[in-house]
Amino acid sequence: MKIDNSPPRGTRDLLPDVVTNRDRALATIAEVYQRYGYERIETPCLEDLVRLESGEGGENTKLIFRVLRRGLPKVVEAETVVAGLADLGLRFDLTVPLTRFYSNNHARLRLPFRSFQAGSVWRAERPQKGRYRQFTQCDIDLIGERSVLAESELIEATTDALSALGLDQTVVRLSDRRILTALADAVGLPEQSRPGFFVTLDKLDKIGWDGVCAELTTRGVQVEEVKRVLDFIAELEDVPSRQVADRLSKCLPALPDNVLDDLVTTASCLNRLSDHRDVHWVFDPTLVRGMGYYTGQIFEVSHPQSSSSIAGGGRYDRLIGRSLERDVPACGFSLGFERIIDLLSQAPKSETVALLYDADSLLSEVLEAARTLREDHKIVSVLSRHGQLGKQLARLEQWGFTSFVYFRKGEELSEHPLRQNPVLFSAT
Amino acid sequence: MKIDNSPPRGTRDLLPDVVTNRDRALATIAEVYQRYGYERIETPCLEDLVRLESGEGGENTKLIFRVLRRGLPKVVEAETVVAGLADLGLRFDLTVPLTRFYSNNHARLRLPFRSFQAGSVWRAERPQKGRYRQFTQCDIDLIGERSVLAESELIEATTDALSALGLDQTVVRLSDRRILTALADAVGLPEQSRPGFFVTLDKLDKIGWDGVCAELTTRGVQVEEVKRVLDFIAELEDVPSRQVADRLSKCLPALPDNVLDDLVTTASCLNRLSDHRDVHWVFDPTLVRGMGYYTGQIFEVSHPQSSSSIAGGGRYDRLIGRSLERDVPACGFSLGFERIIDLLSQAPKSETVALLYDADSLLSEVLEAARTLREDHKIVSVLSRHGQLGKQLARLEQWGFTSFVYFRKGEELSEHPLRQNPVLFSAT
Repeated sequence: MKIDNSPPRGTRDLLPDVVTNRDRALATIAEVYQRYGYERIETPCLEDLVRLESGEGGENTKLIFRVLRRGLPKVVEAETVVAGLADLGLRFDLTVPLTRFYSNNHARLRLPFRSFQAGSVWRAERPQKGRYRQFTQCDIDLIGERSVLAESELIEATTDALSALGLDQTVVRLSDRRILTALADAVGLPEQSRPGFFVTLDKLDKIGWDGVCAELTTRGVQVEEVKRVLDFIAELEDVPSRQVADRLSKCLPALPDNVLDDLVTTASCLNRLSDHRDVHWVFDPTLVRGMGYYTGQIFEVSHPQSSSSIAGGGRYDRLIGRSLERDVPACGFSLGFERIIDLLSQAPKSETVALLYDADSLLSEVLEAARTLREDHKIVSVLSRHGQLGKQLARLEQWGFTSFVYFRKGEELSEHPLRQNPVLFSAT
Repeated sequence: MKIDNSPPRGTRDLLPDVVTNRDRALATIAEVYQRYGYERIETPCLEDLVRLESGEGGENTKLIFRVLRRGLPKVVEAETVVAGLADLGLRFDLTVPLTRFYSNNHARLRLPFRSFQAGSVWRAERPQKGRYRQFTQCDIDLIGERSVLAESELIEATTDALSALGLDQTVVRLSDRRILTALADAVGLPEQSRPGFFVTLDKLDKIGWDGVCAELTTRGVQVEEVKRVLDFIAELEDVPSRQVADRLSKCLPALPDNVLDDLVTTASCLNRLSDHRDVHWVFDPTLVRGMGYYTGQIFEVSHPQSSSSIAGGGRYDRLIGRSLERDVPACGFSLGFERIIDLLSQAPKSETVALLYDADSLLSEVLEAARTLREDHKIVSVLSRHGQLGKQLARLEQWGFTSFVYFRKGEELSEHPLRQNPVLFSAT
């Protein structure tokens, strides 16, 4: 039987061209975030299972890869509970680890702390096209900033990073969890129906209004309530950005003033931003965001080339309190790195010289020739000459080499381009 | 009870200054390896347990973090074998994944293929100072190159990378597994004693000659045999590099010619290298290297500032064959990234501006001021003014900010250095 050398189900090998693209994108993002004062940190990929499972990670907590305790006996006793056999898990996002990191290290960090993280996360999802069990997340978080300076800055920095990647014309969709709560209050939605209601509303872009209404009804939300929700949302949708606050205060008079103030402030910052950058924003009353931990403004970024959003985030003022035992305001924005990579064009290959040598050359002299070329700041790959020269050169070109040098003892090193050039091939 | 927010046992949180240092070192290493034509690849952190456990990973296979299968029942039946509950494991090195990667993707790679990997690996070791359960490895491998061009190039590239990090005066220790085998033949060491013999010899730098002799005796190696080994090694140690081959052929007349030829070639390449660079090399007959899979030359790099070696590698011509089902020659060199980081001085902080604003400022104007400064290529962190100015400035300096701008509506943005400067503090 042939050995299966593919990576584990749902994971990927990343080949050189792909890695080059990803590294280039990550370097661009890092450079932009650094300009905003964000500092990169790293946390371990493993966290205690108890911590991973106790957060409001939503569906993600069901998808944790769990790690067996060390030192277990070879055979387990009867009635052993599987959950007790594991103590650690691979992180499913970078937010849960960040809150632990902050609680553990806050005394040694700036305040407010601007965190930049880029790293792998794991989710045991059913593998499907474009979805992987290990993938990269790329988050910035501003911890310790109570005002919507955080939201505005995160949105500016993120759209700036996207623009540096060539993704302009981004649209920011903005809402506030507290508006959703006020809306649920206004239609008289009972407390126990709310989580399900939000989960369903969050599917709007996937299942459409008819789907949302049908699902809400099966969830036991009254038809009358659903209709009132739809009416509210219809009134709040597509409102010109400068009139959103007015309209909200009319529709939802019970909405606290500070929610409106925050919205007005973020709106003015985003209006000012869109005067300078190719970024637009809209108020989107249907925006929910999956996680349970959001407490204030929430936002997503979409791009004309992508059907789903390419970044998302929001304020989570009560998550750090769970580990630090006192609340610290926090707000984060996560780039959908894998989706973004799919939108980017392939980075051009670096100029690379193939240094060819014959089998009878002295290796010490071949390496010396390579050294000389590298001292001239060239990227040099040393390869032995074999087969027909024309064929070998064609292969080198196909592999992305841009020129070659044929090393021959005593001869000067001269570099030839590797464009498809039959004259060159016959001449050498 | 206070919540414990430390990372899981044996793992670390990496703070901004540490990450900056590590990123800078990694970028330097990557840049050097790229100049030698090495292409970065990535493999998943999880591999099938069967694969991880079937290689010659030596002691490392006992230290694998094993991942529970998904979809297990809540309670397992009696007599369930624990090993059967896990299907995946976290990689403990980058070599096993590389051989799978190559076998899976070789048709789409250059030949020979120059691989560069930098990534986390996991080992469930007993935590101790300077040893972590998650740490970074940094490997280059040359796959498909039969000649010792591979060894010579890997050594040159690695010492070049170390030199770019400021680690000069490195010493390369070189040997060959085939010499160890010939030595074992010459003293008549029986086949079954050999693995234990090599394991013990490998501990020489830790337990000294007396320790080695004692351990060999307890392993059942005859005192006479041990003595003969010592005699051979004494004759081969501290031989001037240009006489090593001569001495070897005299001591071990049964040593195959190609082993001597390879040594002579690598020696001539390394001699030439040390004419140009601050690198020295010695033949070290006591060098073993832990892994079972080496088939040819093996090497380590030491540095005057480090008591243990900072890089190690060797040829493994029969490892890829296990997954590809045909042998492909290969040779690799791994940097001890964590040890190297400990030897480097802290990278200087980037010039960073703290933009201070009063609580009554308009946030949209504060962000606009920050934008203006960033367009001037500055790194800007926005912070609210509070408390005594002098104290706040002192704290900013302590946090690594190099200058500040105090935003006031209508006033020009002027930047002040944050050196400890009482005159400045009283003047502002």
